[in-house]
Amino acid sequence: MSAYKAPLEDIRFLLEAFDYNERVQSIPRFEDFDLDTAMDLLEGYASFCVEVLQPLNGPADAFGVKYNPDDHSVTTAPGFKEAYQQYAENGFTALPFPQEHGGIGAPVVVSTLGSEVLIASNKSFSMCPGLTAGLIDSLEEHEVHSDIYGNADLLPKLISGEWAGTMCLTEPQCGTDLGLIKTKAEPFGDHFKLTGTKIWITFGEQDITENIIHLVLARLPDAPPGIRGISAFVVPKINDDGSRNPVFCGGTDHKMGIHASPTCVMNFEDAEGWIVGEPHRGMRAMFTMMNAARLNVGIEGVALGEAAYQSALSFARDRRQSRSLAPAKSDRNAEADNILVHPDVRRMLLEIKSTNEGLRGLVAWIAMCYDLSHHATDEEEKAKASDLVALLTPIIKSYGSERGFDNISTAMQVMGGAGFTSDWPVEQYMRDERIAMIYEGTNHIQALDLVGRKMPMHGGRLMRVFAGEVTSLIRECSGNEALAPFVAALKTESKRLNDTTMKLGAVAMSDHEVMGAVASNFLNQFALVTLGYVWLKQLSKVVDRDESDALRRSKFQTGRYFFELVLPDAAGYAAKVAVGKEPMTDVDVDLL
Amino acid sequence: MSAYKAPLEDIRFLLEAFDYNERVQSIPRFEDFDLDTAMDLLEGYASFCVEVLQPLNGPADAFGVKYNPDDHSVTTAPGFKEAYQQYAENGFTALPFPQEHGGIGAPVVVSTLGSEVLIASNKSFSMCPGLTAGLIDSLEEHEVHSDIYGNADLLPKLISGEWAGTMCLTEPQCGTDLGLIKTKAEPFGDHFKLTGTKIWITFGEQDITENIIHLVLARLPDAPPGIRGISAFVVPKINDDGSRNPVFCGGTDHKMGIHASPTCVMNFEDAEGWIVGEPHRGMRAMFTMMNAARLNVGIEGVALGEAAYQSALSFARDRRQSRSLAPAKSDRNAEADNILVHPDVRRMLLEIKSTNEGLRGLVAWIAMCYDLSHHATDEEEKAKASDLVALLTPIIKSYGSERGFDNISTAMQVMGGAGFTSDWPVEQYMRDERIAMIYEGTNHIQALDLVGRKMPMHGGRLMRVFAGEVTSLIRECSGNEALAPFVAALKTESKRLNDTTMKLGAVAMSDHEVMGAVASNFLNQFALVTLGYVWLKQLSKVVDRDESDALRRSKFQTGRYFFELVLPDAAGYAAKVAVGKEPMTDVDVDLL
Repeated sequence: MSAYKAPLEDIRFLLEAFDYNERVQSIPRFEDFDLDTAMDLLEGYASFCVEVLQPLNGPADAFGVKYNPDDHSVTTAPGFKEAYQQYAENGFTALPFPQEHGGIGAPVVVSTLGSEVLIASNKSFSMCPGLTAGLIDSLEEHEVHSDIYGNADLLPKLISGEWAGTMCLTEPQCGTDLGLIKTKAEPFGDHFKLTGTKIWITFGEQDITENIIHLVLARLPDAPPGIRGISAFVVPKINDDGSRNPVFCGGTDHKMGIHASPTCVMNFEDAEGWIVGEPHRGMRAMFTMMNAARLNVGIEGVALGEAAYQSALSFARDRRQSRSLAPAKSDRNAEADNILVHPDVRRMLLEIKSTNEGLRGLVAWIAMCYDLSHHATDEEEKAKASDLVALLTPIIKSYGSERGFDNISTAMQVMGGAGFTSDWPVEQYMRDERIAMIYEGTNHIQALDLVGRKMPMHGGRLMRVFAGEVTSLIRECSGNEALAPFVAALKTESKRLNDTTMKLGAVAMSDHEVMGAVASNFLNQFALVTLGYVWLKQLSKVVDRDESDALRRSKFQTGRYFFELVLPDAAGYAAKVAVGKEPMTDVDVDLL
Repeated sequence: MSAYKAPLEDIRFLLEAFDYNERVQSIPRFEDFDLDTAMDLLEGYASFCVEVLQPLNGPADAFGVKYNPDDHSVTTAPGFKEAYQQYAENGFTALPFPQEHGGIGAPVVVSTLGSEVLIASNKSFSMCPGLTAGLIDSLEEHEVHSDIYGNADLLPKLISGEWAGTMCLTEPQCGTDLGLIKTKAEPFGDHFKLTGTKIWITFGEQDITENIIHLVLARLPDAPPGIRGISAFVVPKINDDGSRNPVFCGGTDHKMGIHASPTCVMNFEDAEGWIVGEPHRGMRAMFTMMNAARLNVGIEGVALGEAAYQSALSFARDRRQSRSLAPAKSDRNAEADNILVHPDVRRMLLEIKSTNEGLRGLVAWIAMCYDLSHHATDEEEKAKASDLVALLTPIIKSYGSERGFDNISTAMQVMGGAGFTSDWPVEQYMRDERIAMIYEGTNHIQALDLVGRKMPMHGGRLMRVFAGEVTSLIRECSGNEALAPFVAALKTESKRLNDTTMKLGAVAMSDHEVMGAVASNFLNQFALVTLGYVWLKQLSKVVDRDESDALRRSKFQTGRYFFELVLPDAAGYAAKVAVGKEPMTDVDVDLL
């Protein structure tokens, strides 16, 4: 009872709204990817996801994964292996990677928006190419010191999809705090032997690809304690000679969602590994992939929020219950009115649609900046784009995952009891989405990254770049009567954000606990202003169309909801930031 | 990895805070149930729930229910049948029911607070006695016209737990709108034959009790259309002569949560039934049980919110990650600090604790009013109590279920990845709780009930009674320095609520769509003021204790969080109410 349709029209509109051709295609590296080509690529990709991967989603959730303790193998859901092979053969694993290693070379903004469709179709499946992409990002910037597993050996295999990758970070005693890692790496000839236990390793073991390359954080014998003593290694599942490297899956976790994505305990028992980059500098290999990975977590919220919205809307279009509160709007030919006549049903749908289209626009903008930050020819543009990526990625990850989850819950509410049953996919979306607030750095870690690292960086330059964008958009839109209420609302909240930032900056310098206490609320305030910017941008792109134009009308009714009923929440978050730390710090934890 | 402990101390404190002995035990009917006796009863009940029912909770979730299409039978989770027998033998099914029918005769406030422990221990299990209690409430006030299934026949069997009851309301085409019911009841001698299909019938079929009594809404042949043509019937599963009445389970739903509670499609195929009350007046039998049932749904949020909080807190007490942002607070003897040192972890825990203890207090207060509204000897007190029950029950149901769900999600966030796995019970709590926002009248239906029915009732008398309670508490607390900031905060939000109410009242009279558009936000604004009242009440009861007293310190640090960081959200809801209906009504639904 689901008929998810890839939101390609909105994706195209957003790429246009953020001047895709002028900004991305103008870069020599991307000259073959004009908007039409990008959309063709996305259309093909979306068809595959919707037609091949989506039908596997529900059954795979029910199947989960099967772990066999006798041989430590993991069996994935029926159809996954075959679908993955087709996915790879179609070149989809290779989308955003450089042509010199066999990639397609598409801009990251294109593959990121494609990811929305992939995740909406089958989130569990998406985790396998997703993690592999993280490894590829890492290996493109850090050298593996190995004659047999060098970058030139690994990258083509990973990009083609023949092999898959994992990220082995977490251990039982350390999740957020990677400085506590205990896994050991002992030098052994030209390579190392790794021993330790890693947990929550996504697709750590599977029956989909012929080999798995683990990126493992571990400590060398002479490592200093803490985060400055972590090195990175690649550890293959299958050795060069076809023998088994002793890295075994010790079990898979039972989880609320993403059932078909194996979450493995991985035991390294003197497993052979090769160092990536310099000793004790392993965290660099991590940070390289972090921005892209976090954008991707943000888009998970958009993806499943959109899919849930579509389910709720299609349910609502068919459902009749009760009468309009305005008798004149009642359909007296039927026994009851369509539930879309009820203002509260519209409120719920607009709450989802307005935040989701805002977030999609935010991702489109920042993913485009990601491409520019790596490849723009103009140094100033490159630096500006890089600042925006650094500043807004934690917001996308955190607000996107929180909002995505809330939106799915709201979609369920539209559907009543039906949404709670497995006859509709919404309950699975909810279970699948919840983890996004936790992994890739919990949402509070994102907030600390925003307030503690990104905002003070370069004397506050990142904030000035963002404020400059907002100011120039407001200036551009000023004087346009149709945009006036939205410009005014954005001005108000943008000014409030500025005030909050100034006050916070002054206190947080001398008292880091204040920063920790208010960071999560501050991030949400900031996120809403960011979405306000994105919405004004969207409206500015359609305002000159005829008033009867469907896209103009749609964007205006949705945007209006955002400005009148979502953006004002920023004031509430600001008030909480202003409270400071005392209600949290003047607390006796024994009394909790 | 769970060690849920019944929050009996807080329950006792709240009963005292709302003057249980003076108000409830002073009623002749409840003279045997002074606070000590009530707490003894609750302690025994809680022990049973925690020791017998809680261990079944996780395994039962994994087992679900098994439906056998050959004989239409439903097998419940291992242990349920035996546990239910013990539960009944202990007299727990009989707790709040009158002694004349074999009940224990305890006040509803006592059994309702007991329900918190039952639900926290095993929500799926709780649904069976829960639905039966609804039927009993109904049969205590409405006569069954039958020689063999009269009230005197049914009540002892239901109260003793030998038989169970169901509520058969919903049909495929009608959930919220019961006026659309199609099930037919044809007269047949002294009784009726019922034909039709009911869906979402909780414990509609089971292997726990020897008989099941269905309360069924249906239409007589001469019924007028809509809600005024609905009659109520009792339909037994097993006839008087031991033969099977043709009411069969056609299947059970697969759901996100409450897996072990069978949700059945029930097919009535000329099943014999007896009318309850008068023809076409079946909705009365429904409304009788509604207040108690809705209180119970509100307490589900408190129950699972509390259980999730306890899991998160116990996880947090053991977990060390990262360093305090205030170096002086760091534990340098350990590799990392306990996570309770981080202000954001405390923020999350206090967010749960403050709203949960507020909601528990609200339920204690209103459940006490429920007893008074039925049995108080003073007519004025009785009327006042009845007004408060009518006014605040929709708030308890709606805000309790929404907050409960959010609180469980927040508890999961404290635990990180661990909370997402089935190693901890939190992910099950989340799945089990989500339906509470939907059943017993969706949360928006509660909001419409509040704004459209309860507030205008008797010329606004219910609101005046509530406002009177708030004003008199504020007056009582004024001048006490330790309470001053809380009094001020409650005054502000109480005045704001009054303003919102006045403005809304003026508009909603002439434009019901406005009411529908803002009702959900208004309910949340109202709910926060209500919790503010409950918190001030709690603090006023401990303020005179020594400042070192643990309960005083605990209530003050939790209450402070509520007043500084939760209550102010009321302003945000008020602002949304002020926006009115246009962003929802000036919308072309074809563009959604």
